[in-house]
Amino acid sequence: MKLNDRGLLVVISGPSGVGKGTVRKALFDMKGHNLTYSVSMTTRQMREGERDGVDYYFVSKEDFQQKIKDGKLLEYAEFVGNYYGTPLDKVNEQLDNGNEVVLEIEVEGAQQVKQKMPDCVMIFIVPPGKEALYERLKSRGTESEEVIQKRINKANREFKKAHLYDYIVVNDEVSNAADRIMAIIRAEHAKTERSIHKYMELIGENED
Amino acid sequence: MKLNDRGLLVVISGPSGVGKGTVRKALFDMKGHNLTYSVSMTTRQMREGERDGVDYYFVSKEDFQQKIKDGKLLEYAEFVGNYYGTPLDKVNEQLDNGNEVVLEIEVEGAQQVKQKMPDCVMIFIVPPGKEALYERLKSRGTESEEVIQKRINKANREFKKAHLYDYIVVNDEVSNAADRIMAIIRAEHAKTERSIHKYMELIGENED
Repeated sequence: MKLNDRGLLVVISGPSGVGKGTVRKALFDMKGHNLTYSVSMTTRQMREGERDGVDYYFVSKEDFQQKIKDGKLLEYAEFVGNYYGTPLDKVNEQLDNGNEVVLEIEVEGAQQVKQKMPDCVMIFIVPPGKEALYERLKSRGTESEEVIQKRINKANREFKKAHLYDYIVVNDEVSNAADRIMAIIRAEHAKTERSIHKYMELIGENED
Repeated sequence: MKLNDRGLLVVISGPSGVGKGTVRKALFDMKGHNLTYSVSMTTRQMREGERDGVDYYFVSKEDFQQKIKDGKLLEYAEFVGNYYGTPLDKVNEQLDNGNEVVLEIEVEGAQQVKQKMPDCVMIFIVPPGKEALYERLKSRGTESEEVIQKRINKANREFKKAHLYDYIVVNDEVSNAADRIMAIIRAEHAKTERSIHKYMELIGENED
């Protein structure tokens, strides 16, 4: 019996190269959860095989900019001339249905989300050490020294953002990290600030 | 890999008759934890078969009152002319060793603990409904109507203290309640305020 019916907005972020995507995937592979993704909105062209509302919500640049103005995006970013963002109304719909919405996003976007929805659960994934992350960034592809150095500099800036998050989860083993996130989700549902309202109803008291 | 090495002080409380003891037992029966009890201190006579430092720390009334004065008790209460309390130094020793210390105490004692050690984790166990609790209080023994009514009145006063806790856990099924508490303990270790210090060391930054 859960005292908090509303889903949680769970923001998974962390320095570049830490393995956010792998952890998120392991999380969704676990059993007995009601985690959902949020479909992003974009201004880029639809590609063959993609479906509107499934892969992305495809909109015009004008529509996207209007949504920014109206505050209807939870977060957004521009990338190679196209906008990408998370529509607020779709996220709220899922949360109202009691599903947790998991956003796996970059450090910058995570801060936008926190401002728009302060009761979200902010999780910062970190490597077991700096060197481990550097190795991963180096071995990612065949990029030049310059590109690798840029990535390392970016990761170093991002490392310092941990204090802006509610939780710090070490990605020592992907399954451990996913377990920890699941524990955080369960614990957050039991938090007094999220559950006291229904509890008061349960025992027949009115909140004053 | 845990970023917070220090154990947590976990306070389990809730209205009389909610099943705190049963939940605590189920919690200790789970695998892979490092939960410890705290041995209480008392002024009552040692009984046959009891050992000092195992069942209780047995002290004189004068010693106990001195400890109260010196603020060396995490919480204490008087019961039928004897004092019972939790020695602060023993709890801190366990926490420093990285063990979680679980205190299962009455609502009144829980508030004392919160004041002495604000970073404890306060968990309020509640029944799935008021009626369920009344039934349990009624069926506990052969007491008179008056005694039962007193208990119900006490439970009703305690019901209203939920807002003083960090978490509200429903004891719908004992194993569910224990699972939730274990999730809370894992999540609390990952909380930024508890883990940022070691994280900063890990990445070679100094906290300012």
